Amino acid sequence: MLIVMKFGGSSLASAGHIRRAAQLIAEQRQAGDQVAVVVSAQGDTTDELIAKAMEITKTPSGRERDMLLSCGEQMSMALVAMQLEALECPAVSFCGWQAGIRTEARHGDARILKVEPRRVKQALEAGKVAVVAGFQGMDENGEITTIGRGGSDTTAVALASALGADVCRIYTDVKGVYSADPRVVDRALVHREISYDEMLEMAALGAQVLHCRAVELAREHQVKVEVRSTFDPNFCGTELGVESTHPHPVRGLACDEQVAMVTVLGLDSGKETCRLFTLLADSGVSIDVIIRSPGTAKGRGVVSFSVSEEEREKVSTVLKSSQRELGFSGFLIQNGMAKVSAVGAGMSDGCGVAANMLRALQEGGIEPQYITTGELRISVILPREQAKDAVRHLHKAFFGY
Amino acid sequence: MLIVMKFGGSSLASAGHIRRAAQLIAEQRQAGDQVAVVVSAQGDTTDELIAKAMEITKTPSGRERDMLLSCGEQMSMALVAMQLEALECPAVSFCGWQAGIRTEARHGDARILKVEPRRVKQALEAGKVAVVAGFQGMDENGEITTIGRGGSDTTAVALASALGADVCRIYTDVKGVYSADPRVVDRALVHREISYDEMLEMAALGAQVLHCRAVELAREHQVKVEVRSTFDPNFCGTELGVESTHPHPVRGLACDEQVAMVTVLGLDSGKETCRLFTLLADSGVSIDVIIRSPGTAKGRGVVSFSVSEEEREKVSTVLKSSQRELGFSGFLIQNGMAKVSAVGAGMSDGCGVAANMLRALQEGGIEPQYITTGELRISVILPREQAKDAVRHLHKAFFGY
Repeated sequence: MLIVMKFGGSSLASAGHIRRAAQLIAEQRQAGDQVAVVVSAQGDTTDELIAKAMEITKTPSGRERDMLLSCGEQMSMALVAMQLEALECPAVSFCGWQAGIRTEARHGDARILKVEPRRVKQALEAGKVAVVAGFQGMDENGEITTIGRGGSDTTAVALASALGADVCRIYTDVKGVYSADPRVVDRALVHREISYDEMLEMAALGAQVLHCRAVELAREHQVKVEVRSTFDPNFCGTELGVESTHPHPVRGLACDEQVAMVTVLGLDSGKETCRLFTLLADSGVSIDVIIRSPGTAKGRGVVSFSVSEEEREKVSTVLKSSQRELGFSGFLIQNGMAKVSAVGAGMSDGCGVAANMLRALQEGGIEPQYITTGELRISVILPREQAKDAVRHLHKAFFGY
Repeated sequence: MLIVMKFGGSSLASAGHIRRAAQLIAEQRQAGDQVAVVVSAQGDTTDELIAKAMEITKTPSGRERDMLLSCGEQMSMALVAMQLEALECPAVSFCGWQAGIRTEARHGDARILKVEPRRVKQALEAGKVAVVAGFQGMDENGEITTIGRGGSDTTAVALASALGADVCRIYTDVKGVYSADPRVVDRALVHREISYDEMLEMAALGAQVLHCRAVELAREHQVKVEVRSTFDPNFCGTELGVESTHPHPVRGLACDEQVAMVTVLGLDSGKETCRLFTLLADSGVSIDVIIRSPGTAKGRGVVSFSVSEEEREKVSTVLKSSQRELGFSGFLIQNGMAKVSAVGAGMSDGCGVAANMLRALQEGGIEPQYITTGELRISVILPREQAKDAVRHLHKAFFGY
């Protein structure tokens, strides 16, 4: 069997953590498998490197930022390879550029274009464990790039796809994909399996267990992905598959606590709204829940949408600079909001999930300010301080406890 | 003018240090020069990385050690480039492999075979400062290598030679090449110029201002090297040249305080001595001062030699394992010694330097245990606690204060 094992930063935070991860890897190889490993930077290394850059300039260029940050994974991979060798498990580490991770020519958030894993294959064929730095690659000009936060998941899935691996196992600090955050809902259950689509919605809506792009890539190339706990490696964890066979229409509850609601007043409903969303997209702002209220007597309406709280400055800049052009009368940005979502493939089958959801919230005394529905999810926007409570009420309503 | 500027770790130890170095670089470019910069790792970064590896294994492989340590210079170069950009000085950083530093296929102590500075040249021609990671390169197999401690000096000289630079300026935390360590001799003087050969002896004998290989390379390719202070950049410093024109036969006093003397008793003077030194060389031990005492009545003599104190374990291992083969009667290793050397090109002209040296030491009440002379230097071995005192007496004798 050929297996890709990915370890996140919290699984590699100290020499002791690295030893534990290396033991898991060595056991897997001992069992007769070919093993490629993808690693993130240790613990808080990436944040520490960013802090070092910030001491020098608040606006480092993307190129130099990538040069700096890519060291985090490079240090981590060398330490893991050393630990494997110390356990008498032959190992060889590779930077992104050495492992053939080819990306777009952009910095900070490049997409992986292809993987040419010649050297990784050679190492595996020689009976060695290949330890590959996650999160980084090289563009066509020989520049070091990074692929965005959480990108090591994506590296692992892309490498698994290129190697034709039998499975890509993501080791993390939780037991798998839960029905809700176990820090919020004590008895949240770990799904034995979940579909790519459901996982994608969960990831997009704030579940931090897997990075969105990694799930997209896994779905696209039908890579078998398993999420497991580094600290309880014998627990089966969660397997991603094409279809899920489950009794509940709702598979999980996701919660994003860093949400701001933007309300634009007096906007013509047609062309101007489109133009506004184009301007926001151009400046890199992702918008999520969008609600259009009916126009007033004058034919002008109200548009509200949610954004990540850290993007509110950008949004404000775009709105201020476009007010004259778009002719709206004003806007307001409401911080301190949260988005709670129920995700599941069975949701669109008319089984009344939205009604159940609202009823459960109401019984808990919670009145969401906005609600929006999609194929695979229903989201409500509410004040942040009510978010955890809402998740608990919904978990009880959908899972019985 | 095309200039290579090299900054050591102590000149880049903090964000403040980096700012100061970047200002020097930006001013140089502002003056109309093309500027390539070579950087070491910041402050104690290399030692910290080694400590991280040691937490995992006392014997990391050379390959993985190089993977880890090369991050030190990579972080440093990215931070310097960021600071230059923040000063509105266009800059672009390059890892060793990107800068075309090609080395032997060995780890930890590889020699630079050639430099193919295509990308560095392009950057310079585009009016940018090229910031290159010192100490590291790539071998023919695409492996990251390092070139030994202090190797950033060598990178700078090799790059200067490949670029045909007008000057290679080494910025350091002292003012230039001194007649003796200024921490020992208050009024030690800074040489305006010194010959490659003299500098080579000084470097080999413990003066830490420039790395030996860098001086060899500069001599071989006739690279103009200047040593300057980062903290007093307008001071002219020391220039290395083909010949020195100086009034003193002695140019400088070097002191190595980490010396052990090894004495081998009852060794046949001929073949066995050669064999012993071959065995020591094979196990990587450099020996320096060698003294052979006349044989005893039985035709067997005593051989003494000095080694770096940190190599005494290796020496002991070699001696124990070869005692039967070589037939000597025993050996002893004397720790806590120091080697004080007087260096100068005029020394071999029969001007009585050795006599002056011994007289000066004797007047100071110091009796060296061993003395050895060469073309460019005279060294004495004495107990470590007398070393600083010896340097002061010799400085007074040769320089008048």
